[in-house]
Order: sequence, then C-alpha cells, then structure tokens
Amino acid sequence: MKDELMKMLERREDEMIAIRRYLHAHPELSFQEEQTAAYIADFYKGKEAEVETEVGNGHGIIVTIKGALPGRTVGLRADFDALPITEETTVPFKSVNKGVMHACGHDAHTAYLLVLADCLIRLKDKISGTVKIIHQHAEEQPPGGAKSIVETGKLGDLDAIFGVHLLPVAPAGTVGYRSGYAFNGRTYFKLRIQATGGHGSSPHKANDAIVAGAYFVTAAQTIVSRRVDPLAAGVVTIGSFDGKGSFNVIKDSVELEGDIRYSDTETQEAIDKEIRRMVNGLEGMFDVRCELTYTPDYPPLYNNPELTAFVAMTLDEAKDEEIREVKEFPKMSPSEDFAYYLEKIPGSYFFVGCTPKGAEKPYFNHHPKFDIDEAAILVAAKSVGQVVCRYLGTNEL
Amino acid sequence: MKDELMKMLERREDEMIAIRRYLHAHPELSFQEEQTAAYIADFYKGKEAEVETEVGNGHGIIVTIKGALPGRTVGLRADFDALPITEETTVPFKSVNKGVMHACGHDAHTAYLLVLADCLIRLKDKISGTVKIIHQHAEEQPPGGAKSIVETGKLGDLDAIFGVHLLPVAPAGTVGYRSGYAFNGRTYFKLRIQATGGHGSSPHKANDAIVAGAYFVTAAQTIVSRRVDPLAAGVVTIGSFDGKGSFNVIKDSVELEGDIRYSDTETQEAIDKEIRRMVNGLEGMFDVRCELTYTPDYPPLYNNPELTAFVAMTLDEAKDEEIREVKEFPKMSPSEDFAYYLEKIPGSYFFVGCTPKGAEKPYFNHHPKFDIDEAAILVAAKSVGQVVCRYLGTNEL
Amino acid sequence: MKDELMKMLERREDEMIAIRRYLHAHPELSFQEEQTAAYIADFYKGKEAEVETEVGNGHGIIVTIKGALPGRTVGLRADFDALPITEETTVPFKSVNKGVMHACGHDAHTAYLLVLADCLIRLKDKISGTVKIIHQHAEEQPPGGAKSIVETGKLGDLDAIFGVHLLPVAPAGTVGYRSGYAFNGRTYFKLRIQATGGHGSSPHKANDAIVAGAYFVTAAQTIVSRRVDPLAAGVVTIGSFDGKGSFNVIKDSVELEGDIRYSDTETQEAIDKEIRRMVNGLEGMFDVRCELTYTPDYPPLYNNPELTAFVAMTLDEAKDEEIREVKEFPKMSPSEDFAYYLEKIPGSYFFVGCTPKGAEKPYFNHHPKFDIDEAAILVAAKSVGQVVCRYLGTNEL
Amino acid sequence: MKDELMKMLERREDEMIAIRRYLHAHPELSFQEEQTAAYIADFYKGKEAEVETEVGNGHGIIVTIKGALPGRTVGLRADFDALPITEETTVPFKSVNKGVMHACGHDAHTAYLLVLADCLIRLKDKISGTVKIIHQHAEEQPPGGAKSIVETGKLGDLDAIFGVHLLPVAPAGTVGYRSGYAFNGRTYFKLRIQATGGHGSSPHKANDAIVAGAYFVTAAQTIVSRRVDPLAAGVVTIGSFDGKGSFNVIKDSVELEGDIRYSDTETQEAIDKEIRRMVNGLEGMFDVRCELTYTPDYPPLYNNPELTAFVAMTLDEAKDEEIREVKEFPKMSPSEDFAYYLEKIPGSYFFVGCTPKGAEKPYFNHHPKFDIDEAAILVAAKSVGQVVCRYLGTNEL
Repeated sequence: MKDELMKMLERREDEMIAIRRYLHAHPELSFQEEQTAAYIADFYKGKEAEVETEVGNGHGIIVTIKGALPGRTVGLRADFDALPITEETTVPFKSVNKGVMHACGHDAHTAYLLVLADCLIRLKDKISGTVKIIHQHAEEQPPGGAKSIVETGKLGDLDAIFGVHLLPVAPAGTVGYRSGYAFNGRTYFKLRIQATGGHGSSPHKANDAIVAGAYFVTAAQTIVSRRVDPLAAGVVTIGSFDGKGSFNVIKDSVELEGDIRYSDTETQEAIDKEIRRMVNGLEGMFDVRCELTYTPDYPPLYNNPELTAFVAMTLDEAKDEEIREVKEFPKMSPSEDFAYYLEKIPGSYFFVGCTPKGAEKPYFNHHPKFDIDEAAILVAAKSVGQVVCRYLGTNEL
Repeated sequence: MKDELMKMLERREDEMIAIRRYLHAHPELSFQEEQTAAYIADFYKGKEAEVETEVGNGHGIIVTIKGALPGRTVGLRADFDALPITEETTVPFKSVNKGVMHACGHDAHTAYLLVLADCLIRLKDKISGTVKIIHQHAEEQPPGGAKSIVETGKLGDLDAIFGVHLLPVAPAGTVGYRSGYAFNGRTYFKLRIQATGGHGSSPHKANDAIVAGAYFVTAAQTIVSRRVDPLAAGVVTIGSFDGKGSFNVIKDSVELEGDIRYSDTETQEAIDKEIRRMVNGLEGMFDVRCELTYTPDYPPLYNNPELTAFVAMTLDEAKDEEIREVKEFPKMSPSEDFAYYLEKIPGSYFFVGCTPKGAEKPYFNHHPKFDIDEAAILVAAKSVGQVVCRYLGTNEL
Repeated sequence: MKDELMKMLERREDEMIAIRRYLHAHPELSFQEEQTAAYIADFYKGKEAEVETEVGNGHGIIVTIKGALPGRTVGLRADFDALPITEETTVPFKSVNKGVMHACGHDAHTAYLLVLADCLIRLKDKISGTVKIIHQHAEEQPPGGAKSIVETGKLGDLDAIFGVHLLPVAPAGTVGYRSGYAFNGRTYFKLRIQATGGHGSSPHKANDAIVAGAYFVTAAQTIVSRRVDPLAAGVVTIGSFDGKGSFNVIKDSVELEGDIRYSDTETQEAIDKEIRRMVNGLEGMFDVRCELTYTPDYPPLYNNPELTAFVAMTLDEAKDEEIREVKEFPKMSPSEDFAYYLEKIPGSYFFVGCTPKGAEKPYFNHHPKFDIDEAAILVAAKSVGQVVCRYLGTNEL
Repeated sequence: MKDELMKMLERREDEMIAIRRYLHAHPELSFQEEQTAAYIADFYKGKEAEVETEVGNGHGIIVTIKGALPGRTVGLRADFDALPITEETTVPFKSVNKGVMHACGHDAHTAYLLVLADCLIRLKDKISGTVKIIHQHAEEQPPGGAKSIVETGKLGDLDAIFGVHLLPVAPAGTVGYRSGYAFNGRTYFKLRIQATGGHGSSPHKANDAIVAGAYFVTAAQTIVSRRVDPLAAGVVTIGSFDGKGSFNVIKDSVELEGDIRYSDTETQEAIDKEIRRMVNGLEGMFDVRCELTYTPDYPPLYNNPELTAFVAMTLDEAKDEEIREVKEFPKMSPSEDFAYYLEKIPGSYFFVGCTPKGAEKPYFNHHPKFDIDEAAILVAAKSVGQVVCRYLGTNEL
C-alpha cells in the first residue's frame, strides 16, 4: 500500500500546489476562517469519509477515514488560519485579503493534508485501522483551536498523532525531528501596580508607583538568572511599562505587560511560582496593591521520544528520493498549540525544510516576505504518508 | 513720614480691595498679561514717577520713584500673572476668563503695591533715596520674568529688594519671615534611553530599554538617600516612565521625565553632578545611549539673614495694630522666581497670612477654591511700607 | 542673688578648671564610672544638700538643693562618663587610663556643675524653689543613663530641666540654642537573611542570600528617598554586609547591620514602619526568612520652644561680658540621651562654644585630639546660673 | 586484532582492579603527584614504548606506542591527580594520605589506561599507526595540566584524541556520549569596589561601597536574564560579598567573588563582555573605582560531532557483552580540562557508568563517600580499546 500511496502523491503534486496557491490568495484570520473551512468541507463532498465541521471553539473539521481492516487509530493535523500581516511578496497568488497573509505555511500544511487524505480515502480498503484528519482553525491566536478540539473528546480514541511544520531552515527535501521538548511554552501576563499619587515635591505623602514598578523589573530578572535551571530555557520579557505621566506628579499606578517563555513544564512551574510570589512580595515591600493577570498560552510541546525515533527511522529507511535528509533539529523558541494534542496523545510534531531555492537568508515564518519552495509540499505529504503507513502496518509502538 | 504713610494706606484700603477684585476677575496667563500690564501702566499715568514697560522677556513694568532727599535705593516687587486653573469659588468677582484664575494671590500683591507706590509718590518730597517698584510678569511659568528683568541691568543700583507672598497658613495680621534658604529650587529633566528592540523570546539579540530604565530609577534613589546632606532637602521624582509597548516585543527606548527639588545651591550642585554621572554610568552599564535634557527652573531662594532680621525687628517694633504677630515660618517646598533677584541683590521675601475668616482647612495656593481674607492686603501694604521707611531712614544695613 | 552668683562663679573659675583637669586625667567608661561617681559624691560631703547615689541603672547621682523660699523645681544635668578612645593630645593632664578618654567634654560639664551646685547651696537661703542637680552616668553608650533616671520617678516634681554641651563650633563666649528638634534620634538594626546554600553552577537548586540581601539594600534606599519628609532628616546606613563565602558556593545566609537616624518622632515612625514592611516583603519576594533585630537608641531631642526662647532671651539680656554672643545653632546629627528627660519634662539643652584659641580647624568631639578652651567652663556655669536664677525668680514660664 | 585486544583486557581485569586499589590508597593532590607519576613511569619500565616524564607544568607523562604498520596517530588520556577531601568510605583500600582522596575516579581512569597501553604495546606489530598515551597530572586544579601539555607541542601530530570519565549516573555497562558542547566552561572573578568611608550619619560626605556593591549584584542579574541566549546555559554566581564592617560606619570598600559558567564559547564571550562593561559602568554610576580580576579556568568542552557519532556507532556495533548500553548523556555542568585538547585536536570525551551495585542514590564525584562499581574499569578499557582499533583500522574519519 505504501508504494501505491507514494505514487499517488507524486502524481497529484500539481494539485497540492494549486490548492496551496488558492488558500494563499485567500487567507483568513484565526477564528474567522469561514471561507477556508467551507473550502475544506467542500473538498470532501462526496468522498467516503465522515466529516464533522465546526468542531471545538471555531471552524475546526475532523474527517474520519475508516480502513477496511482492523487496526489502530492515528490522527494527522494541519492548521489553516492566517496572520494579520500585510503581504510583501511578489508571488502571482498574493493575498487578496488586505492585511491578512498566510505567512506561516498553514496554506501548504492544509494543501498536502487534503490530498493525502483523499488518497487515503481511495486506499481505505487496504488500510488497517482508522485515520483521523484534523483540519484545525486558529493556531496563531491563543487560546488556539487545538485545546478545544481535544476537549470535545472526539480524539479520545487516537493511539498516536502526527503533524508537520514547514520551516525555511533547510531546503525542501530535509525533514527534521526533535525528541522531547521541542517548542517553548508561553504565558502572557499583565501587572497593574496601584500606589498613591501626589505632588512631586512631597514624596512622603504619596507612594510612587514608578519606583515600585522599577524595583519589580529589577527583581524579576532574578527569576531567569537564579531560579531557572541553566540547562533549561526560560525568558521573562517585560515588553511594556506604561507609566507615562506628568514630570512633577507622583504616578499613582503603572501597568506592566510581559511575555514568558519556557522550554518545559518544570521551568513553567518554577517561573509561575516565582512571579506570583514576587508580586505578593512587592505588595509588602512597597505597600502597593497588585493585580496580576496571568494567562498561560500554549504549553511547551513535548514530542514522545519513542514515536519521534519511529518517525526518524521510518523516514531514514524509506529511501525516498524526495526525502533526501533526515536529521535532528534544534529546539524552537516559538510556541505551537499542537502541544495540547501531545499532552493527551503520544505523538510527534516534525519539520519539513522549505527554503526557497537560491535564498541565502530566507525570510522566516511571520515575515511579510515569507515564502516557500513548493517542492516541500510533496515532501510533507510523503513523509506523513510514510509514517501513517508504517504506523498502521505494525503494532510495535 | 512713616506714620503719614500708614494713615494713607489705611484710608485707601477699599481702593486696594477694589483693584484686587478687578484683577481677580480678569486674570491672564504668564507671558500673556497684556491687559493686566496695560491696567498697571494706566494706573501710573500722570503720576510723578518714571514708568518703563515691556521690561525683560514679557510685560514687566518698572516704576522709579525718586525721593527728594539723597539715600539708598530699594526695590519692591509684586507679580501679576495668573494660572491655567478653572476657578471654583463663588466670589462675585470670579474670573471671567475661562480656565484662568488668580489662584496664587498675585492679584492682591499687585493691588497693595500699586496703592503703596502711589502713596510713596505722593510722599516723595520726604523720601531719602529711591524706590523702584517692580511689577513682574510670568512668575508662574519657567523661565519666569524675574531672571530677564535682572538681566536688563535696570536693577543694578538697588541696595536691597523686598517682596511678600500671601499664604493661607496664618490669619490676616500674621507676618512670617524665614532667614537663609526659604523656598526650594527646582529642575526639570527628561532622559531618553535608546537601546535595541527585538522579539520577546530572544533577549540576547536585543537590548532591553525597560530594564535599563528600571535600573536607572532604582539607582537614582541613592542620590537623595546617600548623596544629599540629610539636614538639607532634596527630592528626585520621576513622574513619568513612558515605556508602553507590546507585551512580547523588547522595547527599544523609553523616556523618563522628572522633577528635582533642592533646598540650597550646594544640594542643587550635588544632585546635578550625580544625575549626570549616573546617566553616563548607565550608558556603560547597560550599553545604551542616553539623551539628557536638564533644565534648572528657579534656584533656591535665599533670604539675606541681616535683612530678614531687619524685617522681623522692624515689624515687631512697629506695634502696628494690623500687624498682630511676626514669626518665623517654616521652609517652603514650592519655588519662586524672586530667587533670581536675591542672587544679585540682598533682600528678603516674606509672608503675609491670609486665611479666610472661619476657614479651618483653607484651600492652599493653586487650588481652584483658593481664597483670601482681603484684610491681608492692607497688612501687606503696611508691612512693606514699614520696611521701606525704616530701610531708607537709616544707613545701618 | 544673680549678681552674687555670677561673682562667686568668676572667683571659682580656677577651681572648675582644676576639677575638669583631674577628671580629664581619670576618665572611666560608661557604666564603669566608679571612681568618678565617688569623686562627685565626695565633693558634696558636708554640704547642705541631699545626695542620692547609684541612681538609675548605674552610678547616677542626684543632689537636691532646697531653697529657703517657696518656688518651682528646676533640674540641671551634667554627664560624667568617658569614651573608649586613646587620647592623642599633649595636655599635661592627659588620660592616665589607657584607651579611655574624656573626648566629649563631659569632664568640663561635671566641673562647672559641681561648682555651680556648691554656689547654689551657699545661696540657698535666697533661693525660691528647688534645684535638682543630676550628675548622670553613661551618656555615651545606649541604653544610656538618662532613661533609667527618669524611670526612677525622682524627677517627677521637676518643672523644667536644663543642660549644656560644649561644642568646638564656636569660640568660648558663644552660647547656642536651638528650638524644637535639635539632635537626631538613632536606631540600630541587624537583619539576618536566611536562604538556601548550594553549588554555584546550579542556582535553581539553591536560593541566593547575597542576591536577596543586595535587593534589600537597593530597596531600602527608597525609605529615605521617597518615604521621609524632604524637610525632615532621615538616614538609613547599612554599614555591614557580611556575606563572605566561597566564590563558587551559593551563600545560604547574610547578615546586615545598620544605623538609622531621624530628626523627629514622625520620621522615626515612618522609617520604623517602612523597614519592618520591607523586611516582610523581602521574605515574600525572595522566599527567604528574615530575622530583624531593631533597637532604638536615643530618641530625637526636642527642646521646648518657650523654654528655649527663654534661655535665648535670658542670656541675651544678661549682658554678661563672658557671654559674648547668643545665637541659633544648626541641628546636630549625633544623638544625646538628654532627649529622655525632655520627653517628660519641658526644658532646653543648649550649647557652649569651646574652640581652642588659635585652632582654625578644631578637632571635633570624639576625636583623639579633641580639646577645649577652658574659658568655656565659666561660660557654661554662668549661662546655666543665669537661666536658673531667672527661671526660679519668675513664674512666667 | 580487536578481538585479541578484548580478550587480553578481559584476562587482565583483576590487574586493573589491583592497580586502581593501589592508586586509591595512595592519592596525591594536583601538581604534587610525585609518587603516582613514579608508579606510572615504573609500570612502563622495560616495555617497548617511548616514555616522556615531567611533561607540561607538572608530572605529566606521554607514552608513545608506534605500530608496525603505517597509519594515523591517536591520543588517549587519563588523569591521575586526587582531591583535598577526607575519605569517608569503608573500603579496605581507603586512602592512607590524610585529607586526600581519589573521589573523582582518576584512579580507575589510570588503571584501565595502563593495562590498555600495555596490551597495545604487546600488539604493536599489528597496529597501523601510533597511539599516544597521555597520563595527565592536575586536572582538578586550574590552570590544570592539559593546557600545558598541549602547549609543549608534543601532541601536534595527533589526528584524534579520546578519553573517558567514570560517572555514577548509570550502572557499569552503560557508556554515554554527548555531541558538541558537553561540559560547561568556567571563569573565576573577583571585584574590589573602592569607595569612600565615613560616618553613618553623614552619607553625603562619604560614598557607600555596600550600596555600589549591592547595585552591581542586582545589575549583574541581567547578564544571564537578558544577554545570554535562552537556549544556551550561562550562570553568574556571586558567592562572596565581603562587606563586613561596623553598623554605623559607611564602608569604604567591598570585595565580591564569583563563579561564571557557560555552555559554549559564544556565551562565554557574551558574559565576559557584559561583566567588563558593567564594571566600567559601575565606576561611572557610583563614582567608585573597581578592580576586576577575571580568570577563565577551563573552557567549554566541545566534542567533535563526527567523532562522537563514530564512538557511539563503534560501541553500538561492538555487541560487546560488557558494553550493554550506549546512549546520549545530558550536558554536564562541571568543567573539565580535557577541553583544552579538544580546542586543538578533534576528539570525543565520553562517559562510563559506574554506579555501585545496589546503590539507589549513589554518592556523586567529589563526595567523601564516592565509590564505584569496579566492573566499570573493564568497560572503560574495552570501550576505548574498541574506539582505538576501529579508528586506526580505517581512514574514514
């Protein structure tokens, strides 16, 4: 079956590219992907698979492909939302939706998975087990779509889940993997410090919010410098210190906003605990009242080591001429809501190189000039196809 | 002559009050006091005194009253500008100029001095020496009028200068004095810290301006806590910390604004030196570029001790029934551009109580409900009159 | 009576000087002044006055001189302890007790008061009221002698109390006074911060006491810079940061010791409250345990304004040829346990200039080369004598 | 040849253990290993190899084994110094040198390498190429022995170098490897801050070294929190803050000592630059003079990725029954002067598990109760033997 699938995918490469270009031209923001979801649902019309739409907190779609033979259940996920970025490329299929752009490759993710799904539907008589295709909305904007899809319980029967992300850090033909923690988690926080205003000449009659805020910023440095394992990654960035006022009036309150990153759950917990303690301590130390809004976004993404090794071995041994190199990738600092699936289901999220040919310093994801080598789409399709075939063809893992 | 002057003043109390009420109803902002200056100039029309208008950097007026007998030259100053405050009193002569108010008593200052000047003109045959009346514009707004008037050189012949300020800290009838430093000086500063922006997840590729700014705020606390003489007064208030940005973007620059107060020239110099050094040090410490705008406003006001003792003694011995109490007043934390005269000319700036009758907690100067007991106007006129008479009647000081 | 007293004092100047020299040569440390107390008690032997010894928590002596006529009761105090300083002067009556020196003028204080007391005893038939002579031990070392003497209740009948201190800030002949708060109060504190030690390479497994201590030092700067009235005086000095350890071991605890000064009770309370709050806040902020030892030494000394004015007027009007100048002195930053008397009894503690003749930069009190112009002893005796005579001769105050 | 070598090693396991026990009983401190060096030199007496003693800055020994056949040159290194630790184990061959202990396994390192060297000498007719055995002194104490041995130039002909360290993080039978940066580098620093002492009550006349030191500690936190790549490891520990003084005297100087760790050269350079800049900035900011002693100890250890993969593959494919598991080990935070060899020569430093049988929580290296499973010695010998045979038997790498 595997060879047949590979051939089918090769033959349909142009179709994948066409779908990707169509989606690229018609990007929609997270939670607003109505046309995109309709396009996807439409794609499956008349096909022998169960399609559920409006899954989770948005326009999520789950397509269930039941193989004729008994076996395990595997999930495949591609995200389909775009970003609030004004496209600056010169491609002919440039975004027609002003200020919105597929600058993260979700168009390609969806394109390969649609065609792969269709092939699997056509091959369902030969499949042992079930494949659940997850077309996920709203990956770019917390709280994201993944968490809510997991919470529907519709994936409760999955034995494993896989997905890929296109990254212009290697040419098309390279597939990357990373075992264990692979993407950082992230938390947004806002701290409002309420003190007491007054006249600049009489500080003792007031209580200076700027001073309390400044000491918080300096003290918060110790979280990363002293409370995080040096071998883990932790970042506490205070990106906003809103304390604008009149030069001779003691500021009564300031508002800080920040971004926290962590490589793993242990580091997340350490930072959480420290921030909360520090905020409490600040109240005591400077006689202020603090209001902390603390919103964890996506957790750190943890790739199951066995399944990641399985992916690496599968692709290495595939000897597919399109999959030219399989290698370990470094840890990624962005976050990814695929992490939510992996909290519940063993799986692996891996990477497909897509550096445009001839680009020495390619534009990275989220850049207005982000572009891909479209050859990567077939690589993605074949890689995931290989993994599905071997996973469903064996009971080893 | 002194007794004659006192009687004249008593007789003209109603006129002083009427002038004060007229001025109160027609307040003008600093540097925009055209009508007020015209009113004052008009007052002197036909009177035997030399009147110079548009003196200094605004509508200042100097009136020279030459006594028939030889003697010293003494200056008397009253300020005549108003504040950008919307009056909230219920007096019948409330401000007719919306958003502008005589909330600092300059109306009363001008009223008493006009009448006193006229009386002195009438008595000029009996006067030994010369009296220069300085009607000063723009006291409320740095750079003020005083400095520019001093710089004209027109006061170069003064042997002494006196002035009074109405303060609702004591009832009408109380006159206050303070030897040495009596009002704090003040400096405005703005510090722009230029660092390097970047993404919140990669602090090492950026250089965080909020962090540098916060450390500056904490370090700046040591100026007052460790570098200022504990027996002197120094204040460094950072009233504005403009670092608003996006939570996950490292801020590339912040702008701080602040207000510095000092009781004396030595403290001013100590603070100046420290701020400048710290800003330089900050550049080294955090690899940032700093732009410091440092604008001293009014210097600390230093009352000549001998002349202040002379004022106290003169008023104490006057046994005037309106001047019921003469006592030392505490140091004042606001600043006052009378300080500029005192940098060049020995003199004393003293205080006249004006708490409205029955007011337990009177509204202080600059409050929208600020009001005075108009009996204080005659007290001011008589006090200054006593001082002038005795000063010109003797060569002791 | 006053003139008679003055004459007696003049005639006994040599005796005062002799007593001072004897005491100077035989200094004793605070709470160990056995010989000195015996010397004093011996002086009164056979004299018509009631002598109580071992008063308070040491060798204090109270001598009660009852006048023949009815009247008020006034206390006069001189301290008699010396300092742990090795004398470096070349006077012939240099200290014979190694490492101990009368470097603060208490020898002269005692000398004048003994002779003055004896004169008053001789004049007791003419005295209206009672004079209580307080020879006080242990002024130099907290908790001092004054507090305990007050607590005996033996001074409960005093209507007023006076004392003087010799200061080489003016020549002999100058007497200084200061109304209101005149000497700063002082508190000693020790802060032990207990964190968790560990290896330098693994900060997250430890909790760094040096870091917590350093943040405390920086935060404590805000007490003076922002919480103390700029017109008052407050100082928080951390004189010891004991955090010596091995370079690559995270320190488990540090110990800070400091000295707090305040010009008045309000400032004392503000600083107390802030330090305690900050220490609590620090525990929260850095997850440490703090142990604070907080020991107020002498309170700020508050001279009763009426009695201070009375002293100034009395000495001014005395027209005594030895008391050449009477003037206001600036506030003093050291502390003085005379403050305890003034907490309970109205009074005034004033100053007698004693700069050695020809000394341009005299050595200040507590310096190993401290010396006085002995002419100041008679000035002290006469000044206090004048004050006593006038105070007991009138009922005005 | 490989199989022959393996058999020889198996037969001589008891000898290795005996050597290890002898060395364990007779430990010597770094740079003082005279007896140990003599023992090693003695071992080679009469053997067909060139022995150089007193190599480098101490008792280093290089033994050159020239194979009969042409080929590459490979170095093998074992360290032989001990630690200033009083042994607390109960082994019968416990240290007889009081206060000195082989608590880091160097006894076992030397034992296996002596026997392995002898076997290679015996097999030299079959060896293609040259083996250089490096018995290194003084690994435990910077500047260490490695750097000086490299600097002799005697290793200039090496094509590769290998070494192992016993670690009780896995049982005997487990061999660990780590590609790229494997051990952190380390720098010692001392910062003396010279300010100006003074009396606690007059901070403005002094300049407080404790305050400057405390701000340095807080500012130094930003080096790790903001200037080091979150994916790299950096630690700045200030282990000593020597600022003990009198509570009421402003401290004139403080001395800080610290320990810096970094995972890679880039991080080392970033931290170096920041510390130096901060120290300069501190001088400006607080008007102090700083004296910085900055002594890099061992650099980060970088294992050549190709040779590390070669080691892993070789041992994996060896199918040796003693080498039961070959796996990646996590990064190590201690430092190791093997790093100096790797700066000049490609190579790999790998790990041999040695947890004593039955020990659930084994004592780690440098603990007074550190002990090993002696079975690990044969594992070490065979692992290194395997690597040498394959390396010299091929020209691939």
